[in-house]
Amino acid sequence: MTYCVGILLEEGLLIASDSRTSAGVDQVATFRKMTVFDKPGERVLVMVTAGNLAVSQAIVQHLRNGLSTETGQDSLFSAPNMFDAARVVGRAVRAIHDEDAEYLRRHHSDFNASILFGGQIAGERPRLFSIYSAGNFIEASEETPYFQIGEIKYGKPILDRVITYRSSLMEAAKCTMLSFDSTIRSNISVAPPIDLMMYRKDSLEPTKPRTVDDGDAYFSSIRKYWGESLRRVFAEMPNPDWPEIRD
Amino acid sequence: MTYCVGILLEEGLLIASDSRTSAGVDQVATFRKMTVFDKPGERVLVMVTAGNLAVSQAIVQHLRNGLSTETGQDSLFSAPNMFDAARVVGRAVRAIHDEDAEYLRRHHSDFNASILFGGQIAGERPRLFSIYSAGNFIEASEETPYFQIGEIKYGKPILDRVITYRSSLMEAAKCTMLSFDSTIRSNISVAPPIDLMMYRKDSLEPTKPRTVDDGDAYFSSIRKYWGESLRRVFAEMPNPDWPEIRD
Repeated sequence: MTYCVGILLEEGLLIASDSRTSAGVDQVATFRKMTVFDKPGERVLVMVTAGNLAVSQAIVQHLRNGLSTETGQDSLFSAPNMFDAARVVGRAVRAIHDEDAEYLRRHHSDFNASILFGGQIAGERPRLFSIYSAGNFIEASEETPYFQIGEIKYGKPILDRVITYRSSLMEAAKCTMLSFDSTIRSNISVAPPIDLMMYRKDSLEPTKPRTVDDGDAYFSSIRKYWGESLRRVFAEMPNPDWPEIRD
Repeated sequence: MTYCVGILLEEGLLIASDSRTSAGVDQVATFRKMTVFDKPGERVLVMVTAGNLAVSQAIVQHLRNGLSTETGQDSLFSAPNMFDAARVVGRAVRAIHDEDAEYLRRHHSDFNASILFGGQIAGERPRLFSIYSAGNFIEASEETPYFQIGEIKYGKPILDRVITYRSSLMEAAKCTMLSFDSTIRSNISVAPPIDLMMYRKDSLEPTKPRTVDDGDAYFSSIRKYWGESLRRVFAEMPNPDWPEIRD
């Protein structure tokens, strides 16, 4: 399993993924699921993937190599805007589907790839897309500023309570860490290190993705603080005054 | 969808369920999913169900009527202990499976029934079981005191953080309300009223299930308090001190 989050903000963009893959409990490993394509001063594109790892890696490789089409070369580096760039990713998904899906089916596996793809190309604001196995996609907006893929449910309530388009990058990073904390506690197939890419609007410079592992001082401190605070708030909250459970 | 929780406590037992059923977004209704079988002074048994509503209702009806077996009548009212009572429920699940599963299959529906079943029979402590579609089951313990069925993930983190076997019935009721709050906020197919049955150990008297709806004063006040407290704790928590996102 995997857990990835992407958040579109007035200040920029945040994309994060865990690093655990598992094919059964005896085959667990750490793989990076984040890929950055950039051309400083012109474009910064970030992609994270969930689903079948072989499929995900094939899609990334395909995008690195550039796709041949009838009209020439199709590349993330030449797409004029983010919408077209998302379509390039969608076509890469479809190309791998054409190649692999029938063989996967013969082995009773589904073709399964979910992608968060965001970034900025000069001349546009930052944009964020969630791309499906079919190669089509939806775009985040001010009203719905975040997407999740993979094991999404445990970490959703905190995002729903806190995140808006006006949240700062710092708040989004803090909230993302808590969302991963809830997920990691409840699902053993999601695990650090967490890769976190924070992009400030109009910088058009890639920032090195930050790798947050179990020993990270900030992550450890807020996990502890959050857990203790929740238990304290819970304890301070009034009990129900229901006669059937009075002593 | 449905969300149900059962919690086994040193003090007794709590079982709760929502009341929403949906078969597509244009067919949404309120149905009670909780059934109590009792014989005051001797036994109190509580059952909640998730899955196909027709299957659930057939199982309950079957249990109300009593099951005919080779060795005579098989009833929740005559089972000598909770384990045997859980087996009676399992046999009811299997009887309905024998009757319905093939017809469901022809209509591309799975036979799908999950049940939480708990209570106390004189001579034993309270016990809690999670019963599967196959009619087999697992039992809660001091180490794993709670079970959930249905839409379980959104409401699991708060249970994991707070509930132990030593929690009081009051704390368990408070935590259950928050667990439903998180679930209801994130999944539109789970909705009040919530039926809540709290049973104090060795009372052997049924307590009327409490029905908590949207307008319930206690539920409204803790939803508000919890939401505000989480946002306050979140705001008070230090931001990451990461150079790439400093202004």
